[in-house]
Formats: sequence, structure tokens, C-alpha cells
Amino acid sequence: MTTTAPLQFVSLLGSLRKASFNAAVARALPGIAPEGVGVTPLGSIGDFPHYSQDVQEEGFPAAVTAMAQQIAAADAVVIVTPEYNYSVPGVLKNAIDWLSRVSPQPLAEKPVAIITASPGMIGGARAQYHLRQSLVFLDAYVLNRPEAMIGQVMGKVDARTLELVDAATREFLRGQLGALAALVRRVSPRTTA
Amino acid sequence: MTTTAPLQFVSLLGSLRKASFNAAVARALPGIAPEGVGVTPLGSIGDFPHYSQDVQEEGFPAAVTAMAQQIAAADAVVIVTPEYNYSVPGVLKNAIDWLSRVSPQPLAEKPVAIITASPGMIGGARAQYHLRQSLVFLDAYVLNRPEAMIGQVMGKVDARTLELVDAATREFLRGQLGALAALVRRVSPRTTA
Amino acid sequence: MTTTAPLQFVSLLGSLRKASFNAAVARALPGIAPEGVGVTPLGSIGDFPHYSQDVQEEGFPAAVTAMAQQIAAADAVVIVTPEYNYSVPGVLKNAIDWLSRVSPQPLAEKPVAIITASPGMIGGARAQYHLRQSLVFLDAYVLNRPEAMIGQVMGKVDARTLELVDAATREFLRGQLGALAALVRRVSPRTTA
Amino acid sequence: MTTTAPLQFVSLLGSLRKASFNAAVARALPGIAPEGVGVTPLGSIGDFPHYSQDVQEEGFPAAVTAMAQQIAAADAVVIVTPEYNYSVPGVLKNAIDWLSRVSPQPLAEKPVAIITASPGMIGGARAQYHLRQSLVFLDAYVLNRPEAMIGQVMGKVDARTLELVDAATREFLRGQLGALAALVRRVSPRTTA
Repeated sequence: MTTTAPLQFVSLLGSLRKASFNAAVARALPGIAPEGVGVTPLGSIGDFPHYSQDVQEEGFPAAVTAMAQQIAAADAVVIVTPEYNYSVPGVLKNAIDWLSRVSPQPLAEKPVAIITASPGMIGGARAQYHLRQSLVFLDAYVLNRPEAMIGQVMGKVDARTLELVDAATREFLRGQLGALAALVRRVSPRTTA
Repeated sequence: MTTTAPLQFVSLLGSLRKASFNAAVARALPGIAPEGVGVTPLGSIGDFPHYSQDVQEEGFPAAVTAMAQQIAAADAVVIVTPEYNYSVPGVLKNAIDWLSRVSPQPLAEKPVAIITASPGMIGGARAQYHLRQSLVFLDAYVLNRPEAMIGQVMGKVDARTLELVDAATREFLRGQLGALAALVRRVSPRTTA
Repeated sequence: MTTTAPLQFVSLLGSLRKASFNAAVARALPGIAPEGVGVTPLGSIGDFPHYSQDVQEEGFPAAVTAMAQQIAAADAVVIVTPEYNYSVPGVLKNAIDWLSRVSPQPLAEKPVAIITASPGMIGGARAQYHLRQSLVFLDAYVLNRPEAMIGQVMGKVDARTLELVDAATREFLRGQLGALAALVRRVSPRTTA
Repeated sequence: MTTTAPLQFVSLLGSLRKASFNAAVARALPGIAPEGVGVTPLGSIGDFPHYSQDVQEEGFPAAVTAMAQQIAAADAVVIVTPEYNYSVPGVLKNAIDWLSRVSPQPLAEKPVAIITASPGMIGGARAQYHLRQSLVFLDAYVLNRPEAMIGQVMGKVDARTLELVDAATREFLRGQLGALAALVRRVSPRTTA
């Protein structure tokens, strides 16, 4: 029964701030995930240099290669990121720019879900559609529903422990991870034995 | 006659590659600009660290502060950039993320023109609209016309000297700089003496 | 003193529904506008046929020509619209498709502000950036700030009278109309007598 | 062997112009499709009224209901459309606005490919990403690759017969239809007998 095999997701965090609310959301995912789904955080995108083809030609940085391998080995990727200036944070886009050059390109045909959290009402929606456009080029399977745009995130994370404590948000994200698991199972290549 | 005072533009380059075609375009601008318009290149965005609020709170990097001052002093900004993964290069977005936090924010009410160059037919169009969305938040005056999307750029730059040699492209860009000058004059605050 | 001359705006409504919340917002604008600013509603975009070049070549519909003239004569346009399917309503885009073919094109160099209202939290933000992209082509001056995305609009309009009663929203929109008036004055062509 | 069962696609045309280049492309699809794939044109979106919830509440127009049923019954949808004003034609968006209200919503989980053709170099790229954003909301599976943006279409269609004659374009579109067929087979719900 392939449909019940355990799945392994990795999470990619778009913020470098230590007390980041998005980091709080990403940290919560392993404890939120439905049964049979594990979520492992990827390394820090702060370890990547600025992308330059000149640097690439000297050899991919070890942090890039390692992350590409982890993504390739995972069943799906969950991107958790703030919105900066109505778009994707530069540091996250830089990581994508690096990963896109690795061969085989690790996001190709990979199921992806997006979570954005922000202090305002809109919850990072503008960043999501920019990220989706890049993921068209990268040929990922991006989950349509449910979209996770967590507005007013400051009220949903414990200010002292930086834990995502809002029960409705946790339940919503559990549902999203379940939908991502269903997408993984739906689009996984079929063996026609 | 304020309408004929000389104008000073600065150019912001979105690629770090030494032999970049977009760098070739940016280098050509001072020689292309119409009479009365100077174009000075800003420093390298490769000198900015990855944006993090934690780093910002320790103090803005000198490269950020210097670039913000140059932009604030300029009459307009010309952004010259490749498109990466159907969007703005991470390293350029990272520079914008830094600049957006400087106070006073240097792109506010600043006239801006966008030039993208790419090897393909589309010339970087997808990156332009993402950049425009960020510039709404930054409250810039972004030039509508003409849009400069230089496709098949490899045939327009001398492979040996890396000089932008295509006459039609040079003439087109001269026209765009002229339109930017007109925008500067149109939106500059008015003295009602 | 040109800066204190009265201004005349027109409002363009993107919904055909009789009890539309966006219609309620549009109807409120004349009473909200700051001193010296009038707001006149344009005719219904429901009177335009579906755009087709074949129809155009038989002659522009009278409703199109009339609206183009009103826009051309106005100091600015306020677009008030719902979001449908994460974008601009087809019926509003159809009106823009018609207006864009009129010569001289009435939105060229015209100051424009956008208001979206929706039952959800996001307030129509997704539609705004699509509309802005069309307005780049049309060469309008689109107001950057403040952006008016009215979320949870059902709680801000009286269910019986369909009047926009929420005081904070009314005050916010007054500020936006004031900002649009300032933009009109800033970008109006200068006479250098 | 479900993987070799014949597939039936439907094509949705975004232009009403009789001599439309996009209509020429749409007409060519049945003759281009790979073996085992049929392509049937849907009815004209010109038969839909402007969307209004008031009209909807009186009952869906017959043309809407009929098209929704055809889409629901098809294995995939191929949208063929021009770009108007840097976005989706209003008349096509209006059709989507109608279809989105039908229950069950016919585009949900439906594989979709997009083809745009235009006289210029960019081939309608800007319209494609706006359409993709709407299709996120509609929960369609939109084909990532290859993207079909047919630039300089006037040179690819016979001016007299309005037939798509360019061999490279025909071959490219055959490949896209093949990729859509592969997507259909990949995402079709699995029976785990």
C-alpha cells in the first residue's frame, strides 16, 4: 500500500532573524504534521553566498549542494517565509537562484507548499504569487489549497517562548500538511507493473 | 529654467557576474544618455550582507548607508538587471530589502526606470512586473514607457570587449533615459513662489 | 493658485450587482471627498458589449465613447472593484479593453487610485496588482499610497441602506482621495510661462 | 492499461475576432494532437452575458451550464488566448468568472495548458501568469512545461486561409499537448484496487 507509506517533508525558512515569527511557524511543523508525515528543517539559507555564475563556475558551495540533496531526497518541500517589500525576501530568492542551477534541479516535479506569516492582515499573500511564478519555471507541483497566509502572527506566537500557540492556526497548518501529503501521493510517478 | 537643469541619475546593477550582459548595458548608459543627463554607477550589491533585522539592529552596513545616500541625492535611479527564475535576482531583491529599511527611505518618491536584458526572446519581462510591485510599496515613481526589455542580448554586446554595440538598442535606451528625464521634471516638487 | 483649483474625479465601478458592497463604497465617495474635490460616477460597464476588434471596426459603442470622454475630461479616476478569482472582474477588464482602443487613449497620463472591497481579510489585494499591470501599459499614474483594500466589508456597510457607515474606512478613503488630489497636482503638465 | 486510454481535451478560446490568430491556433490543435488525444473546441465565450450575481441568482445561462458540463467531462482544458493590456482579455476572464460559480466547479483538479499568441516578441507572457493566478483559486493543475508563448504570430499563420502553417510552432504545440496528456495521466485519481 504505497498510499500509506510514511512521508518525509523538508522545510525551507525564508528569514534569518533569530526571533522570526516564520521560524516559529517552521519549528512547529514537526509537531503539527499528521501521522505518517515527518518534517525536517533544511539548513540556513544564510550560509549561501550571493549567487553569481562566476562563483558557481568555481564549484557549488557545500551548503547549496547539501540542501539540494536533502530536497531531492524529500517527498515534498514546505517553504515558510515572510514577505519583504511585497515580494519574496532577497535571501530566500537567492537560495532559489542557487538551487535552480544544481543538476539535476532538485525542485523539478517536487510537491511544494507555501506558508507566509506577517504582522499585518494580508499575511504575506503578495509574496506567495511571486514565489509561485518562480516555481513554474522550476517545474514544481505547488499545492493550490489550502493557502496558508497567517496574518497578525504576533498574536499567534508566544512572545516569550516563540512557540506557535494559536490552536486554529495549528489545526489549519495540519490540514495543509495533510493536503500536501495527498498531493505527493497523487503526483508520484506510477509504476505500471 | 528648472526644466533644463542638468540631471544626475544613478544605475543599480542586479548581476554580480564579471562578464554580465546587464553590466555591459549599465556601463553603456553614461555614453548613451541625452545631453544634460549624467549616469553614475552605484556600488556593488555584492557588498551587502544578507538582510536580517538582527544585523540591521547592530547598525546598517556602510555599503548600504552609502548607496542609500547616493540614491537620495540622485534625480532618478536606473535599475539594470537580469531575470532569474522568472523574477528579480535574489541578490538585487536583497539590496532592495536593505535600502527599504533606511530612514528616510531613499526610493520614496524617486523616479525609477527598469532595464532588463536576457539571452531569450522575452528580455526579462517577468522580472520587471515583480520589481514594479516592490516599488509600489517603496512609493517610487516608476517610468511606464518605454519599457526596456532587451531580448537576445548576446547578439547586441561585443563578445570580446563586452561593449553594448547594437545601435538600435543604444538609441532605444537613449529614448528611455530621455523619458525618465521628462518624468523627473514632471514629478519634482513644485515651488509655488 | 493652481494648487487650490477644484478637482473633478470620476469613479469606475467593477461590479454589476445591485446590492454590491463596492457600489456602496463608490456611492460614498462624493460625500467623503475632501473640500475642493468632486467625484462623479461613470456609467455602467454593463452597457459595453464584449470587446471584439470586429465590433470596434463597425464603430465604437456610444457607451464606450461617452465614458472615454468623461475620463479624458476628469482630473483623475477612482476604480472601485471587487476581486473575482484572484484577479480583476472580467466585466471591468472588458471595459478597460474597450477604453484602451479609443484614440486618444483616455487613461494615458491620467492619475488613478484603486479601491477594492471584499468579504474576506485580504480585501482584494490580488486584483490590485493585476490592475496595476494593465495600467502600466495604459501609461496611467497610479497612486502608490495609501492602498485601499477594504477587508470584511460586510461589517462596514449598513445591510439595509447599503451605506458605507464605518467611520474608520470613510476617514481612510478621505485620506486616499486627498493623496490622489496631491498626485494630480504634482503630475499635471507645467506651464513654464 | 489506463495509461494508453484515449484522452479528450477541450479548447477554450479567448478572442471573439473572426480572423483571430489565436482562433487559428485553436483550430489547428485537433490536427496537431498526438495519437490518442482528441481536441474539441468549446462554444463561444461571446455567448455568456457579463457576470453578475443578480443574473446568476435568476439561473445560470444555458451557455455557461453547457460549457461547464463539457469541461467537467473532458480530461483537460487548453486555453488559447491573446493578451490584452498586459493581462487576460476581459471576455475570457468573464467566462472564467461564470464557470467558477458553477457547482461542482468544473476546473477543480482539472489539468490545464495555456497557449498565448501575439504579434509582438513576448507572445502573451504577461497574460499567462495572471491566468495562472486565477487557476490557483480554481484549484486546477496547470501544466508548467513547455509554456507556449507564440510571438510574431502573423508570420506563422497563412494570411489567406488563416491556417497555422509554421512547422516549428506546430511541432512545439504537439509537444505541449503530449506533456498535457502525461500530466493528465499523472494526476488522475488512482484506484487502489
